[in-house]
Amino acid sequence: MPKPSPSPTPSVEPRFIRACRGEPVDRTPVWILRQAGRYLPQYRAVRENVSFLDLCKTPELAAKVTLDAATALGVDAAIIFSDILIPLEAMGAPIVYGDEGPKLPAPVRTREAAARLHGFDPARETRFLGESIRLVCRALPPDVPLIGFAGAPFTLFAYLVEGGGSKNYETTKRLMLEAPDLAHHLLDRLADAIAPYLSAQASAGARALLLFDTWAGMLSPHDFDAFVVPATERLLAKLDRGGCPVAYFALDSAGLLERIARLRIDVVGLDWRVDLGEARTRLGPKLAVQGNLDPCVLFGPRSSVEARVREILAINAGRPGHVFNLGHGILPHTPVENALALVDAVKKYRSS
Amino acid sequence: MPKPSPSPTPSVEPRFIRACRGEPVDRTPVWILRQAGRYLPQYRAVRENVSFLDLCKTPELAAKVTLDAATALGVDAAIIFSDILIPLEAMGAPIVYGDEGPKLPAPVRTREAAARLHGFDPARETRFLGESIRLVCRALPPDVPLIGFAGAPFTLFAYLVEGGGSKNYETTKRLMLEAPDLAHHLLDRLADAIAPYLSAQASAGARALLLFDTWAGMLSPHDFDAFVVPATERLLAKLDRGGCPVAYFALDSAGLLERIARLRIDVVGLDWRVDLGEARTRLGPKLAVQGNLDPCVLFGPRSSVEARVREILAINAGRPGHVFNLGHGILPHTPVENALALVDAVKKYRSS
Repeated sequence: MPKPSPSPTPSVEPRFIRACRGEPVDRTPVWILRQAGRYLPQYRAVRENVSFLDLCKTPELAAKVTLDAATALGVDAAIIFSDILIPLEAMGAPIVYGDEGPKLPAPVRTREAAARLHGFDPARETRFLGESIRLVCRALPPDVPLIGFAGAPFTLFAYLVEGGGSKNYETTKRLMLEAPDLAHHLLDRLADAIAPYLSAQASAGARALLLFDTWAGMLSPHDFDAFVVPATERLLAKLDRGGCPVAYFALDSAGLLERIARLRIDVVGLDWRVDLGEARTRLGPKLAVQGNLDPCVLFGPRSSVEARVREILAINAGRPGHVFNLGHGILPHTPVENALALVDAVKKYRSS
Repeated sequence: MPKPSPSPTPSVEPRFIRACRGEPVDRTPVWILRQAGRYLPQYRAVRENVSFLDLCKTPELAAKVTLDAATALGVDAAIIFSDILIPLEAMGAPIVYGDEGPKLPAPVRTREAAARLHGFDPARETRFLGESIRLVCRALPPDVPLIGFAGAPFTLFAYLVEGGGSKNYETTKRLMLEAPDLAHHLLDRLADAIAPYLSAQASAGARALLLFDTWAGMLSPHDFDAFVVPATERLLAKLDRGGCPVAYFALDSAGLLERIARLRIDVVGLDWRVDLGEARTRLGPKLAVQGNLDPCVLFGPRSSVEARVREILAINAGRPGHVFNLGHGILPHTPVENALALVDAVKKYRSS
């Protein structure tokens, strides 16, 4: 599918979508990674009565926490409440969500285990997500678009092989070295499963799509080229974007920017470890960026939140194609008033 | 002190030292970060009878594990067995080395706690290190120089404030935001303590000095400029190099290379997350580099160890100023034969 051409009626598009396309906006749009998270009392109240996974799978509740967060923060985009690992479960790899992050009781490390994974139909196995999206889109104001998302093939592959998060991803990397064919096979299967899963989110009403490749940055450029690029391109080629801009985010990606820039995407998510201006120069003129405030800045005084927000906006210097965000998910103990201060500072900023 | 001019008799200098100075060499020198570590049976045998800290503080044993590793691997440099946190203990901040990494029972987060830290005389409080270095230098062949090292001010500061390793360094970053004056005060005191500690290693016989700024890469470029650069420059200005080239290594530094290049150093340690050739271009013509094989490659088959080593050497394409190494410390479960295969592959490499 060809890249969508700019909308014929740009004036009615929300500023978040326009910024994703690199078009001029009245002010920089802002939202917060994991904005419907544990730092928010509304979210914690809902979670008192329901597990994380049940919350993801109950459209009324998922819609409620999605909308609560967008309303409380006054942000320019909502993101559907869900989890990057949902497709793994739908493929037959159960996940246990505990206090120490998600774990897979049965990691997939052999061709036999891989053979037991299966594709899935988003209209059936993950129907709850389409319903959540439809509920949210019905309730959102027209200038606040909804973002759909999924884990990218490599990050889901790393969870699948490792069985959870990891410091060094030794098991994953060993499999890539010892059985590269199996690694490519799994990555291709994941790409093939994620493409319709993301396409279904666009069909249900999502206006932008975000691929979280959280762990791709633990790879050398060699492995990124050999494993991440082919699987991600495979997914992107099969994706029915429905006019949505597509964003790609990897943590620790400062050494990979030129490679990420060659993917068929519209927006690159930046973590806080890179200067936004230097990153844009390396990414080239065609890509929009999203980021990139250090989430830990929100633990400081309000004055430094405001100063750091202004600084990033000054670095971008009004260049079109910037969505303000944190450089990674908002942390659980973040004071809500500082999240609000962030949004407020972006909204009030005027370049001088 | 001015940067040392190239040795007047370069032909007798070991290839490791020549490479650190960017001079031509007969072949790329190689050593391995943490080469005297838990993966080595000789090291584990010594550790059966002595704690980690006692090993650091017993010159005969520290010299033995230093020499055992250099001999077993046949590398082009030895590195004195010690720990980056030794200066903290000498300043009055006790450290407990356990299975989950070093912990500081009394983290330093207030001006009162900072006032209780004290400077130290390397000839007295860390005399054991000078003795270890003298013992090693007496035993090493003349073509294998010894590397002295210390934790850099920021990394010691992060341990001091956080009380140990951390996922997000929330406490450290909060202190930097809430009490920047205290942060700068601590960083300056650390720089002032580390400079003579490193200078003493050069006096005792070390031929190169390495600053480990392991955690600097968790900072935004803004914080790197504001906190890491001034303290590191302060240390480097006070350092009596005694003719030693100085190397600086930070993990996750792909977004910081242009900033690191402005430090008064000779060699930049690169982790595996950046392409060596791209990094050299960004660092400019004056700096040598050290790295940058992913330590996890050593978990793969021997053939892939050899292929990946050759690939990095091919990327560098014979340009002077490259010391081959891993991109981070060798991991505890690494097969020794793969560490040997790495060294062997570097030694056998001939650019075609």
